[in-house]
Amino acid sequence: MEHFFKVKTVAEVLDLIGRFEPLAGEQVALAEARSRVLAESIRAAENVPTFDRSTMDGYAVRARDTFGATESLPGLFALIGEVAMGEQPETPVGPGQTMRVWTGGMMPQGADAVVMVEYARAVDDSMVELARAVAPYDHVIRAGEDVKAGEVLLRRGARLRPQDIGLLAGLGVGRVQVTRQPSVAVISTGDEIVPVEESPGPGQVRDINTYSLGALVESAHGLPVHLGLVRDDPQQLRAVVARGLEQADTVILSGGSSVGVRDYTVEVFSSFADSEILVHGVSVSPGKPTILARAGQKSLWGLPGHTVSAMITFDLFVRPLIERLSGEAVGPERPGRFIEATLARNVASVHGREDYVRVRLERAEDGSLAAHPVLGKSGLISTMVKADGLIRIGLNSEGLRRGAAVKVALFEP
Amino acid sequence: MEHFFKVKTVAEVLDLIGRFEPLAGEQVALAEARSRVLAESIRAAENVPTFDRSTMDGYAVRARDTFGATESLPGLFALIGEVAMGEQPETPVGPGQTMRVWTGGMMPQGADAVVMVEYARAVDDSMVELARAVAPYDHVIRAGEDVKAGEVLLRRGARLRPQDIGLLAGLGVGRVQVTRQPSVAVISTGDEIVPVEESPGPGQVRDINTYSLGALVESAHGLPVHLGLVRDDPQQLRAVVARGLEQADTVILSGGSSVGVRDYTVEVFSSFADSEILVHGVSVSPGKPTILARAGQKSLWGLPGHTVSAMITFDLFVRPLIERLSGEAVGPERPGRFIEATLARNVASVHGREDYVRVRLERAEDGSLAAHPVLGKSGLISTMVKADGLIRIGLNSEGLRRGAAVKVALFEP
Repeated sequence: MEHFFKVKTVAEVLDLIGRFEPLAGEQVALAEARSRVLAESIRAAENVPTFDRSTMDGYAVRARDTFGATESLPGLFALIGEVAMGEQPETPVGPGQTMRVWTGGMMPQGADAVVMVEYARAVDDSMVELARAVAPYDHVIRAGEDVKAGEVLLRRGARLRPQDIGLLAGLGVGRVQVTRQPSVAVISTGDEIVPVEESPGPGQVRDINTYSLGALVESAHGLPVHLGLVRDDPQQLRAVVARGLEQADTVILSGGSSVGVRDYTVEVFSSFADSEILVHGVSVSPGKPTILARAGQKSLWGLPGHTVSAMITFDLFVRPLIERLSGEAVGPERPGRFIEATLARNVASVHGREDYVRVRLERAEDGSLAAHPVLGKSGLISTMVKADGLIRIGLNSEGLRRGAAVKVALFEP
Repeated sequence: MEHFFKVKTVAEVLDLIGRFEPLAGEQVALAEARSRVLAESIRAAENVPTFDRSTMDGYAVRARDTFGATESLPGLFALIGEVAMGEQPETPVGPGQTMRVWTGGMMPQGADAVVMVEYARAVDDSMVELARAVAPYDHVIRAGEDVKAGEVLLRRGARLRPQDIGLLAGLGVGRVQVTRQPSVAVISTGDEIVPVEESPGPGQVRDINTYSLGALVESAHGLPVHLGLVRDDPQQLRAVVARGLEQADTVILSGGSSVGVRDYTVEVFSSFADSEILVHGVSVSPGKPTILARAGQKSLWGLPGHTVSAMITFDLFVRPLIERLSGEAVGPERPGRFIEATLARNVASVHGREDYVRVRLERAEDGSLAAHPVLGKSGLISTMVKADGLIRIGLNSEGLRRGAAVKVALFEP
C-alpha cells in the first residue's frame, strides 16, 4: 500500500487542506464570542452614535460665537440650561447662548462645539464667560463618526478580539453568527504507553501526546475530544477511530511508533466508506511519517509518535486545518506570529527536505534577539519546553550559518 | 477630595500594583491546566525515560561490534530475539548478537546502539547482516536524557504551554497546583448608557465597555463577573461595588463620564472598611482620570468611560494586576508581545505625559512593517477595531517623527 504514495512537500499537504470546507455557522451570545470566527460580515444597521455627542465636560456653543475669545477677553454667553445625560436637550442653542453639557451628553440643536469647563467662569446663574475659541466640532463626536450606517467594519472570517466584541455591542449585535468550533478527536496508541496516573514499568513510558496534543487543539481554538489510549491492535484502533469520526470533525492518531501500527493506520483509515489516503509521508523533518486521509468530508491524521514530531506536525498541518474548518480568513501573516532573530550557531540540513529546528530566544545586550538551536532527539519533550519557537530551513537549503537572519515562528501559548 | 492627590506616572501606578499579593493555589486536572500559572516549581521525581529506549525501528547491538561494517562488507550477527513493546527484553545482547527492536522499545542489556532496519538484510531466521557502523548511543534515548530525576524544568510562575502540559504528563503529574484564576467584576455606569439589546433613544448609546472589558479580562486569563449597568447614583453604585468586592478579586468600574460620577467613584471607593485611594489621575493619554483604590486586600478600579481609554487603561494597568494576582513570574518581555515597525507619519505628544497611540500595521514591499497611526477620538471603538497595537511616546518626548523606529505593543487577542 505504502508504495503507491509519493512523499509530499509541506506546501502540497497545505494545498490538500484547502479541500476541507469550513464548518457551518451557529449563533452565540456576544459575551461568549471572543476568539470565535465570524460566519458573516457585519454591516452597521445604524449610525454610531446616532447623535452628536460631547467628548468633554463643558459648554455647548455655536463655534463661531467663540471666535476671538481669549483669557484676557472672554466671550459672554447666556446660560440657557443643562443637558441631562441620556436625554435629548429640550431647547436649541441660539447665537450668544450656551448650555452646560457633560462628557457623552447629546449636543443641543444649534450647537456645534464644546468649550471645556476649564475655560469657563460663571458670572451668575444665567451668564457664563468662555475664555477660549473653538472650531466647529471641537470636543464633539458627530453622529456616525464611530460607525456609519451601512459600513462593514468586521468581515466574515475575522477572529473576534475584545475591541471587535465592543464594536458589536455598540451596534446592538447581542447574538453573533460564528463558525462552529472544530472538535478534534485525540487518540494515542502504543503498547509501551501507560496512562499518566500509572507508574511505568520497565520498557513503558507515560502518555504525553494525549496531553500535549489536547492542549495544542485548545490553543488552536478547537475542542479536544479525548478518546484515550489504544493498544497496537487494528480492530481496537478501527473502533476508536470510528468513534472519533462520529464525535469529531477531525481525528488525530498519534503513535504507531512500531512498524506494525504504521501499517495499521493506513489500513484502518482506508477501511471507512468513501475514504482516501491523501498523504503518506512528507518531506519534512521532524514529521516524515505523517499520514492524512479523508473519510467522507472528515479528515484523519496519523501523526508520528515522537512527542516533538507530533507537536511540530500538529503546528504545521493540523493547526492550519483547524483554522480552515473555523473559516478563519487566510490573511497575510499575523504580526507577532513570527519574530526576527540572529542564528547563534550553524545548523545543518538536507537538500530536498524542509527542516524545523527548535530554538530558544535570548535577548542580547544590544536588544537584538539570538536564536539558539535546542538540540536533542525528537522524542524529548524537554527540548520543546526549553524552546520558544521554530525556524524553518527550506527544501533547497543545506543549512544555515551562524549569524544568519532567521524568522522564528513562535509557539502558540 | 480630588485635590489631595497628585497625578501619578504610569511607572508609579505599576509599582503600586506590586502591593497586591498573588492569589492562593488550587489543584486542577492536567487536561485543564493549559494557560494556568504554576503555583509551585516542578521537580522531576524520576528519570524520563526510566530506561534506554530505541528511537528507530532496527537492530539493537553493541556498537563496537559494528565498527567497520559497510554496504560491501556487512557484519554478520546472530538474531537472538525481538523486543516486545512495553516490555523488558528477557535476554541480554552479547558479542556478535543482535535483537530486533522497534521505535520506543527498551534496549536489551548489553546493547548500546541501534542499526536502522534499512541497513539490515535477513540471512535466515537466526542470522542478519548489518551494513552500517554505529557509534555508542546512536538512535538511543538514554535513561534520564529527557528529564533527570531531581531536575526542575518548570518553575513557579510559569504560564503552562502545550509542551509544558506534555512534560507534566511525562512526569506523571496528573493534577497540578496552579494559582487561582483572578475573578474581575465588571461594572458599567452612565445614565446615557442602555443595554445592548435595547434601541438607544436620542442622547443614549449602547453599553460597549461591559463587553470589551469582559473580553479583555478573558484575554488576560481572568474570569469576568458581569455586574451590569448602574445608573449615576452613589447609593446604587456603592451597592454594586460592594457586591463586586464580595464576588471578585478586583472590581472595574468604567464610565462615570459625567463629573458627578467621577466624584462618586472616589466617594464610593473610600466608603469601604480599610480602604485607601492609591491613584487618582495618571499622567497618561488616554487614561488620565484613572482611579485605583484598595479595600482590604482587594483593588478597585475607576476606568475612564470612553471606550478606547477604558481598553487602553485596562491593558496598561488592569492586565498587569491580573498577571500579578495570577502569580505570573515577571520575566523579560515575552517575545511576540512587541514588534518593531517604522512610523508612517509624525505623531505629536506633550512633554510630561505618556501617550499611547493606536497604530495599524502594514507590510511594505520590502517586508518591513509600517505603523500607521489610527487617528480619532478616544470615544470611537472603531479606531480600536482598525488598529493592531499601540506605540508609546515617553514622558519626556514631544512626539515622534515619520520614519522613526517604533516598538508596537500588539493587542492581545
